[in-house]
Amino acid sequence: MERIAVFPGSFDPFTLGHESIVLRGLKLFDRVIVGVGSNDSKQPFFSPEARVAMIRDLFQDEPRIDVQYYTDLTIDFCRRNKAQYMLRGLRTTSDFEYERVVAQVNQAMLPEVESVFMLTFPEHTAINSTVVRKVLRYGGDVSKFLPARLNIQRYMPR
Amino acid sequence: MERIAVFPGSFDPFTLGHESIVLRGLKLFDRVIVGVGSNDSKQPFFSPEARVAMIRDLFQDEPRIDVQYYTDLTIDFCRRNKAQYMLRGLRTTSDFEYERVVAQVNQAMLPEVESVFMLTFPEHTAINSTVVRKVLRYGGDVSKFLPARLNIQRYMPR
Amino acid sequence: MERIAVFPGSFDPFTLGHESIVLRGLKLFDRVIVGVGSNDSKQPFFSPEARVAMIRDLFQDEPRIDVQYYTDLTIDFCRRNKAQYMLRGLRTTSDFEYERVVAQVNQAMLPEVESVFMLTFPEHTAINSTVVRKVLRYGGDVSKFLPARLNIQRYMPR
Amino acid sequence: MERIAVFPGSFDPFTLGHESIVLRGLKLFDRVIVGVGSNDSKQPFFSPEARVAMIRDLFQDEPRIDVQYYTDLTIDFCRRNKAQYMLRGLRTTSDFEYERVVAQVNQAMLPEVESVFMLTFPEHTAINSTVVRKVLRYGGDVSKFLPARLNIQRYMPR
Amino acid sequence: MERIAVFPGSFDPFTLGHESIVLRGLKLFDRVIVGVGSNDSKQPFFSPEARVAMIRDLFQDEPRIDVQYYTDLTIDFCRRNKAQYMLRGLRTTSDFEYERVVAQVNQAMLPEVESVFMLTFPEHTAINSTVVRKVLRYGGDVSKFLPARLNIQRYMPR
Amino acid sequence: MERIAVFPGSFDPFTLGHESIVLRGLKLFDRVIVGVGSNDSKQPFFSPEARVAMIRDLFQDEPRIDVQYYTDLTIDFCRRNKAQYMLRGLRTTSDFEYERVVAQVNQAMLPEVESVFMLTFPEHTAINSTVVRKVLRYGGDVSKFLPARLNIQRYMPR
Repeated sequence: MERIAVFPGSFDPFTLGHESIVLRGLKLFDRVIVGVGSNDSKQPFFSPEARVAMIRDLFQDEPRIDVQYYTDLTIDFCRRNKAQYMLRGLRTTSDFEYERVVAQVNQAMLPEVESVFMLTFPEHTAINSTVVRKVLRYGGDVSKFLPARLNIQRYMPR
Repeated sequence: MERIAVFPGSFDPFTLGHESIVLRGLKLFDRVIVGVGSNDSKQPFFSPEARVAMIRDLFQDEPRIDVQYYTDLTIDFCRRNKAQYMLRGLRTTSDFEYERVVAQVNQAMLPEVESVFMLTFPEHTAINSTVVRKVLRYGGDVSKFLPARLNIQRYMPR
Repeated sequence: MERIAVFPGSFDPFTLGHESIVLRGLKLFDRVIVGVGSNDSKQPFFSPEARVAMIRDLFQDEPRIDVQYYTDLTIDFCRRNKAQYMLRGLRTTSDFEYERVVAQVNQAMLPEVESVFMLTFPEHTAINSTVVRKVLRYGGDVSKFLPARLNIQRYMPR
Repeated sequence: MERIAVFPGSFDPFTLGHESIVLRGLKLFDRVIVGVGSNDSKQPFFSPEARVAMIRDLFQDEPRIDVQYYTDLTIDFCRRNKAQYMLRGLRTTSDFEYERVVAQVNQAMLPEVESVFMLTFPEHTAINSTVVRKVLRYGGDVSKFLPARLNIQRYMPR
Repeated sequence: MERIAVFPGSFDPFTLGHESIVLRGLKLFDRVIVGVGSNDSKQPFFSPEARVAMIRDLFQDEPRIDVQYYTDLTIDFCRRNKAQYMLRGLRTTSDFEYERVVAQVNQAMLPEVESVFMLTFPEHTAINSTVVRKVLRYGGDVSKFLPARLNIQRYMPR
Repeated sequence: MERIAVFPGSFDPFTLGHESIVLRGLKLFDRVIVGVGSNDSKQPFFSPEARVAMIRDLFQDEPRIDVQYYTDLTIDFCRRNKAQYMLRGLRTTSDFEYERVVAQVNQAMLPEVESVFMLTFPEHTAINSTVVRKVLRYGGDVSKFLPARLNIQRYMPR
């Protein structure tokens, strides 16, 4: 049976840390579905379309990676995609505390989906989308925090 | 002297974890006052009236439990109710860090009220009101996270 | 029914932080039994007799405090003493993580005993018996870390 | 290519929490090798032979699980077994901090082995081998903490 | 070469804990520049002008302390002021996790500025600007949390 | 007045992470005294002489770095050396919790010595002496974890 994993997030924007988890996940799973979630509580910096486009462009040569936008619960997104796994990256202990709660809630609601965690590389620990957005807002250079092939200027909101 | 404890929170909504702490607190204290607080920074999902009503209905057969809404500082609510204790549940280390700061501030401002902590049961660790609200918004099933006798539909905002 | 709490520890030696928890616990409980535990993995600095003596001397005027040495499991000590509560102080998040595991194990084995936690005062956070022993070994001054009325010299091993 | 994972530990003894991780890992990996490690700093409660035997007996009907004792570095054990993955369970934030350091060291020394983490179920969070050994020493009942089919008496040291 | 440190924050308001770090930093550095930052995501309680004024008034007799408002990235503020150090206070592990990410991001973007940390005194651990604002909103007494010479009423918004 | 910092540790052995802190500390302080402490509870892997020698050899061209062995309390070592600062590196939240307790105890006993912290670089986070010793014991390659110019073979116990 094909091993399908959902990699959910808001990816606002998609960083070097996210890319690393997807690529490493691709070795473990037969298919990785990047689930670009809406975030009801915050106005995103990049539109859903821009976020989906930047990730699709990045992985256009990899047929085993799929990118989709979703607006419902992550467990419903997993169910629709027949994913048996949810893939998550862990950076810090705060991450871990948060991810544990999310995974336990998901486990209670949809036990057949297993949450699987990989560690962010040490050199990516400090990279997070919040920081990248802040630097972008001030016109700073974010190239160190983004995948090498990602031309972020192409997706900037106008 | 009667031992009176305030159990403060926003209870938006009141969960299985909250119920467990109140019931266990009832063994230790002579009276437990559930203090339904306002939260200035967020618009609640359930109105103050709905939150007070759902907790009162749940504990209607227990004369030693009182439920009140308050809009001022928790220490002032304690003072008005002559409570010598503040009862809190602890789930995770993030909880602990947050609760420690709150308790130390309260201790500095009203030393005669002692904060007393009980541990959330392991099977309730992942339950929190934020998650319940999120699932409710998407029409998911939250019955696993709520007290068995609580009919949440009755209190839903229209 | 009398509310009886066990306050277990190795108390090698009994510090200002321990004293504070016992005295605050005495308001909440009708009786506090200080349980001086053996520690199979380490050679203690103060003998069991010295530890029991220093705590008894300290609280000799308080009939509601009892001090006992025990060498079996803490839950068995609670059972023998008909305690319904186990009282513990929390200082740091590492404390919390450790105490949570211990309390959950105890809860699984003896559900009728409830673990109740109080916070160490901020000015006592850094005080722990390990540090006091280390300073004692080098002949340093530990009076800041010990109860005012405790004359530690009287209990020193020869 | 076959996905092979090593699940390393001292398993002194093998608990319900360990069993859960192995069984869930078996869905994700084609083969799981339980690596029973020596621990240079501590005298084990159960001999290496007893630990290997109890795990083998438990999984005797599952040909995709292998159990081996090893005395060298875990990365060398992985290399010998051609494992591409190291499987680990996460319970608490202390676990996470420790596991992150171990995984980063392993990653620096043997980058081709990926550490993959699963969460311990909430009801297993408090279970750890240290506690089980302590209760065993005092003749307490540990059946709640061990796999249902594991008859621990059979492996007890004499 | 003169050792210049920036002490950045939103200081809404400036607390006893902040004062302690600045005064201790003044022994280590030749000059300390208190950088009053804007915070794009929140409406401040005290205006930028009020915050700058309260800190300047407090340190008016200390020529080696400078107070400035800035609205760009903290690293750009450091660069403009030729600061080689960023000074930060650490209270809790949550602080530490957050500060580590910020410092690593800053280090990646401006390696010549070193982040230097001092510990908040235990008795100041619970003091934070969020709490002070909350108490101020309800008309409570915040004098315990503020520098002795700071007359907060003078800066209150009308 | 000369700014003197003590950098205390057991340095068994001295790693890349330690070297980084000393070199960065050298910019902030006029003199850095590496204090090689004894550790009463453990038998060291490298003798005190070997540890002092490896650090001295490493910094032989830097007259502002001094290396000394000490067997008493760190605060007494600071006092003897007229150091006003204690320099420490922080890697993880466990480090932080531990260091905070140590610093608060030192502050209580010798308030005139200020503890100053720098962050370990992300790529050094996983490096610690315990791991290095373990790999050395199994004959593994530790060169990635040690300063480039440190020839560890020269100091190996026989």
